[in-house]
Amino acid sequence: MTPADDPAGTGARPRVVIVGGGFAGVACARELAGTDVDVTLIDRNNYHQFQPLLYQVATAQLAPIDVGTPLRNLFRKDRNVDVKQAEVTEVDVAGRTVRTADGLSWTGDHLVLATGAQPNFYRTPGAAEHSLPLYSLIDAERLRSRIIAAFDAADRDPRLVDQGALTFVVVGGGATGVEIAGALADFVTTVVPQEYHDLDVHQARIHLVDHGTALLAPFSPEAHEYAAKVLQRDGVRLHLGTAVEEVTPAAVRLEGGTTLPTRCVIWAGGVQAADVAARCGLPRGRGGRLRVGHDLSVEGHPRVFVLGDVAAVESPDGTPYPQLGSVALQQGQWAGKTIRADLAGQPRRAFHYHDKGIMAMIGRGAAVAEMGHKRHELHGAIAFASWLGVHAWLMSGVRGRIDAFVSWGWDYFSGNRTPGLVDHPSAATIDFGEPGQVPPPRTPAPAPVAPAG
Amino acid sequence: MTPADDPAGTGARPRVVIVGGGFAGVACARELAGTDVDVTLIDRNNYHQFQPLLYQVATAQLAPIDVGTPLRNLFRKDRNVDVKQAEVTEVDVAGRTVRTADGLSWTGDHLVLATGAQPNFYRTPGAAEHSLPLYSLIDAERLRSRIIAAFDAADRDPRLVDQGALTFVVVGGGATGVEIAGALADFVTTVVPQEYHDLDVHQARIHLVDHGTALLAPFSPEAHEYAAKVLQRDGVRLHLGTAVEEVTPAAVRLEGGTTLPTRCVIWAGGVQAADVAARCGLPRGRGGRLRVGHDLSVEGHPRVFVLGDVAAVESPDGTPYPQLGSVALQQGQWAGKTIRADLAGQPRRAFHYHDKGIMAMIGRGAAVAEMGHKRHELHGAIAFASWLGVHAWLMSGVRGRIDAFVSWGWDYFSGNRTPGLVDHPSAATIDFGEPGQVPPPRTPAPAPVAPAG
Repeated sequence: MTPADDPAGTGARPRVVIVGGGFAGVACARELAGTDVDVTLIDRNNYHQFQPLLYQVATAQLAPIDVGTPLRNLFRKDRNVDVKQAEVTEVDVAGRTVRTADGLSWTGDHLVLATGAQPNFYRTPGAAEHSLPLYSLIDAERLRSRIIAAFDAADRDPRLVDQGALTFVVVGGGATGVEIAGALADFVTTVVPQEYHDLDVHQARIHLVDHGTALLAPFSPEAHEYAAKVLQRDGVRLHLGTAVEEVTPAAVRLEGGTTLPTRCVIWAGGVQAADVAARCGLPRGRGGRLRVGHDLSVEGHPRVFVLGDVAAVESPDGTPYPQLGSVALQQGQWAGKTIRADLAGQPRRAFHYHDKGIMAMIGRGAAVAEMGHKRHELHGAIAFASWLGVHAWLMSGVRGRIDAFVSWGWDYFSGNRTPGLVDHPSAATIDFGEPGQVPPPRTPAPAPVAPAG
Repeated sequence: MTPADDPAGTGARPRVVIVGGGFAGVACARELAGTDVDVTLIDRNNYHQFQPLLYQVATAQLAPIDVGTPLRNLFRKDRNVDVKQAEVTEVDVAGRTVRTADGLSWTGDHLVLATGAQPNFYRTPGAAEHSLPLYSLIDAERLRSRIIAAFDAADRDPRLVDQGALTFVVVGGGATGVEIAGALADFVTTVVPQEYHDLDVHQARIHLVDHGTALLAPFSPEAHEYAAKVLQRDGVRLHLGTAVEEVTPAAVRLEGGTTLPTRCVIWAGGVQAADVAARCGLPRGRGGRLRVGHDLSVEGHPRVFVLGDVAAVESPDGTPYPQLGSVALQQGQWAGKTIRADLAGQPRRAFHYHDKGIMAMIGRGAAVAEMGHKRHELHGAIAFASWLGVHAWLMSGVRGRIDAFVSWGWDYFSGNRTPGLVDHPSAATIDFGEPGQVPPPRTPAPAPVAPAG
């Protein structure tokens, strides 16, 4: 420790306070684990959520525990990393101090803000109230309960199909929207016919709406086409170049007058920086993200870092880095290394992102991956294997070991587990109105009443 | 099919309506799978919950998916078994018809009621509002969120310990109460010191209260002593022969004037028949259970069976059968066989329970098992192995195959999974009052504020 790190001469070990247990925060804490600093890692949840696979939880392909890992467990053996579950509501940048609503505070010699993002409803009327976002693990669990409850309702009472019980509307054509739409299409074609013996699966409808004209906008034009082709082949109806005007409890109203009756609107329409970013008093960029320099620190506050989805970082050529798990992971590792360099009295370097490319899964049997100018359209087992590999790499960055992922991949392949539990009752409650309001079926519905013997 | 089964001469296949997807209902449906009847299996949830292991979910040793299996998945390959998720609110015994609040109904040639039980709060003031029962999978998930949230709160702010943040009160000394108290003691001694680096684990308190004077009442006096000895060795404070007078949001008041400040009261104080039993118009016995004859049918309604926890069945020597998963499982199998015998024109026989004995786990390292007059006090690996074997047998009765259990046992042994997610936010919300109301700590608390560098 240099005198600069201990101006009071207390001999205390330097402390790093990290807010946020996502890719960036965990990677930073892991970089500092076992070193001569005390790390306090604060998150509102007690777990890390592996966001790239949330859509798999929502469609009952993975269980919550497969994509949520308790933070304390991740740092169980690292005595210098202390995890605190707390909701930070206030950030004093100059004092490198964060506070909670109930009066607790933590101050660091270095402060790392990696608080992530939250859904952006773009002031669409009804969207915040009546749609289900897909950004957190609890979002995914609630969405899974809603999706299965909708199928259960239609299976119980076929008249509810006309009220939108089997219509699913995905808002947003980015990676999350494409992945959840593809996974839902898989669910409808593979799981539903096997498990819902009475349901006419052909009545299910999946719509994807985006105000832009391309799916997977950050990818190449060829990838846009490929994603559209695969989704349409799988039965997804695309509404591109179309804005959502309103979400109601029973429908989505689109620009141009179309109204889609539905009981399940999945909001994958974009994100903005987490609320706490607005209360830092720092300059903000697009999506409310905090502007930081090339070393990821805040101008005038070199010991305050901002990382991941809450940061607006420009690459050396001036373009902003994309909001990806791999960017956040590398920023976390980089910030951890920078803090170690600071404490060793070494100079800082600018952050460089080692671009591993981008990938999106379009249903289980197709994927698109782009590395620089190379594009790969992947099919079948190759698509699935590549997808597994990419996520194995990301997950090992968080969990610090590969074995957990191998066991997870095995569970996934063996297909033995069926995590389709409706265990979030509030999300599973769909108000179809009083029985008297049920419109008469257009075709004679299969009667749930058996002839008495 | 005999003419008696098809009085209308429609040629329709006989239909069996089963209400309840617990041990009894699932075993009955499995017995009828692949036969010449149509089975409708109705449950308010879309999954079977493996009740004997709910306490493991509550203490984050198993994930919900390990003890909850979607019913549709269980009968995926049985085209004659149709699962309906619906809440039955009315039973017309004479018409063998069940109805839901939204006007749906199902009628069977045979009707099987296996609706299970629900917690019995015995009109204890505040118990229904402020305690957390442990009877359903959602109960267990909510309890897990509450338990971990309490440890997180005390770790975040040590002053909350005086407000009962680390005090857990189990009400009920039966198998569920003993098992959850033992599992909590394990959690405190093994998981907490590893994962909560800052917490003084010796401040945690586990109390078990029962108005009776013995733990594990259905077992022998020696077992009562053994359970008490093991729990006390593990730090559980016993209050036997003591009634709970009131549960408040912040405390439990016991008979005799003792008040235990606590934020987590676990209600394992007994069960009563599920609500729907009261609305059948049938004679009811102890705990509101429906009286049935030796063939498990209702007097005067030979094609209506009542099984499992909702049934009051006497053994041939006049003693009631205990409320155990293995009793329910055998009753379900027996009812399925009886229905097949009815349809084949064969006579009925009285139900006989093949007593496999009773077992309770007292923490991970000790168990007690009794078969007839033989008592086994089991320790360490033998206790755990026996416990695994008993539950393997029960689980295979539900899942119809042993492989799922083997994979589950492997996960459990390997200990790789850490399902300690706080993902039921409402249960995790503990109101400790305004910061200003926090009493000053009796001893200087470890300050969460680090010295500013």
